[in-house]
Amino acid sequence: MTTISREIRLASRPTGMPKPENFELAEVTLPAPGQGEVLVQNTWMSVDPYMRSRMIDRKSYVPPFQIGQPLDGHAVGKVIASNHDKFAEGDLVLSMMGWREAFISDGKGLQKLDTFGLPPQTFLGAAGMPGLTAWGGLLHIGQPKEGETVFVSGAAGAVGSMVCQIAKIKGCRVVGSAGSDEKCAWLKSIGVDEVINYKDHPDQRALIKAFRAAAPEGIDVYFENVGGDHLVAALEAMNTNGRIVVCGMISVYNDTEPKPGPSNLAYIISKSLRIEGFVVTAFMSKTADFIKDLSGWFLEGKIQTQETVEHGIENAPTAFLKLFSGGNQGKMLVKLDD
Amino acid sequence: MTTISREIRLASRPTGMPKPENFELAEVTLPAPGQGEVLVQNTWMSVDPYMRSRMIDRKSYVPPFQIGQPLDGHAVGKVIASNHDKFAEGDLVLSMMGWREAFISDGKGLQKLDTFGLPPQTFLGAAGMPGLTAWGGLLHIGQPKEGETVFVSGAAGAVGSMVCQIAKIKGCRVVGSAGSDEKCAWLKSIGVDEVINYKDHPDQRALIKAFRAAAPEGIDVYFENVGGDHLVAALEAMNTNGRIVVCGMISVYNDTEPKPGPSNLAYIISKSLRIEGFVVTAFMSKTADFIKDLSGWFLEGKIQTQETVEHGIENAPTAFLKLFSGGNQGKMLVKLDD
Repeated sequence: MTTISREIRLASRPTGMPKPENFELAEVTLPAPGQGEVLVQNTWMSVDPYMRSRMIDRKSYVPPFQIGQPLDGHAVGKVIASNHDKFAEGDLVLSMMGWREAFISDGKGLQKLDTFGLPPQTFLGAAGMPGLTAWGGLLHIGQPKEGETVFVSGAAGAVGSMVCQIAKIKGCRVVGSAGSDEKCAWLKSIGVDEVINYKDHPDQRALIKAFRAAAPEGIDVYFENVGGDHLVAALEAMNTNGRIVVCGMISVYNDTEPKPGPSNLAYIISKSLRIEGFVVTAFMSKTADFIKDLSGWFLEGKIQTQETVEHGIENAPTAFLKLFSGGNQGKMLVKLDD
Repeated sequence: MTTISREIRLASRPTGMPKPENFELAEVTLPAPGQGEVLVQNTWMSVDPYMRSRMIDRKSYVPPFQIGQPLDGHAVGKVIASNHDKFAEGDLVLSMMGWREAFISDGKGLQKLDTFGLPPQTFLGAAGMPGLTAWGGLLHIGQPKEGETVFVSGAAGAVGSMVCQIAKIKGCRVVGSAGSDEKCAWLKSIGVDEVINYKDHPDQRALIKAFRAAAPEGIDVYFENVGGDHLVAALEAMNTNGRIVVCGMISVYNDTEPKPGPSNLAYIISKSLRIEGFVVTAFMSKTADFIKDLSGWFLEGKIQTQETVEHGIENAPTAFLKLFSGGNQGKMLVKLDD
């Protein structure tokens, strides 16, 4: 038995905003799984902003993607044939083997998935890496106290929407920014106290005014997914002893020339600010605590999730590109087994 | 009995680099001290970079200086007449009543000074606010570990030179930047492992190269007194999980137009950096610990201090202006009772 699997490879390294031609669809023929191996059919795969940085050929916290090779990333799949002690046909599994329809594995990096009754794709979003990112970044770095104001940029994304909801659970006033009225309306519907459609405030001065109007009491914790003018505006609106959690800066990932940074960094001193970046791997050792918190919140109905879904491996590049044009609300996913 | 005291007042708010005409020398006549009062003659006064920000009329962590009013700041003085229970003639005292030759006090904000055999002016530098700034910022925020590399900008200043020496005591490799060969030679003489005369590297690219050459193993703790291109170069050279302690940004204090900030802030994420600003008041409650550490180090001969001294109240503005032109090595002081 052999299996034909389609996969997405990096055709060329993008300059600036990635384009469809940076990706290619290819077919590989997989053999039957050997002794100690399993054949997995992916059912869902994740596209995430951090993948953009892996398309650049440089040393970073994750190695770069290689041209002509399939991309990778988180995926949920089903074991369809097994010669491995620990996996049985029908098992759901989590892996980093996204961007392909199927793969053979010797079990390394493969994790059996107990969904606790949640839809399996939740483990690519709220209950997966984006959820852990939100939970760890907000609670362990931002350390919000009850009654404080938390401002979340990119609030309607997979990470941002989780940060908003966790901050509400912790008794904070929450302000979010997003790029459409529809996203803002959704954020209101999940309990965000105040929202800014940043596209209504196209220059830096207007954005600063909007931040101040939305958080007249000042910002205690700013959760940064966007960068650029958002960071300038946040620095203006921060309170003394404020914390800026730097999770992402999606507005600069596609810059071909580095853009100048905020001219108001001296606030770091006069407001005694802490600005701290992180990578989700820092919280891997706390996964059990995260899952405990999250499962409780899900049971109590305190977490709402939303997904934007593309269908078919051939549309994975489209899904990825939508991350940069604001085409996703909540978690961006690709469904692979329709 | 009355006393004639000369004092320096703010004549006008400086725009850009302060000029002598922003200051005026005035005379006041002090009455004899009343019941519960003392008359203090200042012997030493301090000028510090943070005073520049108090010349701007804005809300900040310390209220702005007022035009036509005497400036203030740390000073050491001697009680020359006392009607106060707690102070006797001849007592040495610390106060915030600098920029004047003498003053009347009801004792509030006046602190009797036990010099432990040190020269009294040490309590305006290594054993005073600049020393506490260095100690608190480096140890409590930077948290250097033995064997790590600590980079100190403005290393030959009152704060910077203390940071260098405390980092050496803690077993770190220490790199310092300063603005003259003479300062660099002094830094070497007090044990700094590597020095950069930043004036030899006038553009950003050259400064980045110089940072990398001086710390080829990468920087773990960057103690920031300077800002501007120094911060850009530090971000390039930081190691993963590095800490940037933001104490000052003297290079931007006199900007009339805000300068763009670093274009490489995305390193905050990819290197998981922590950037933290502070004001020395944050460490006031730890003063006893600081004094304990410091007195031990002085006894063991581990702390060298250097002073640059101007003489006479009329030269206090000159002393202050020298802070911004690199005219001081170690602590900048004004001797008042010659």
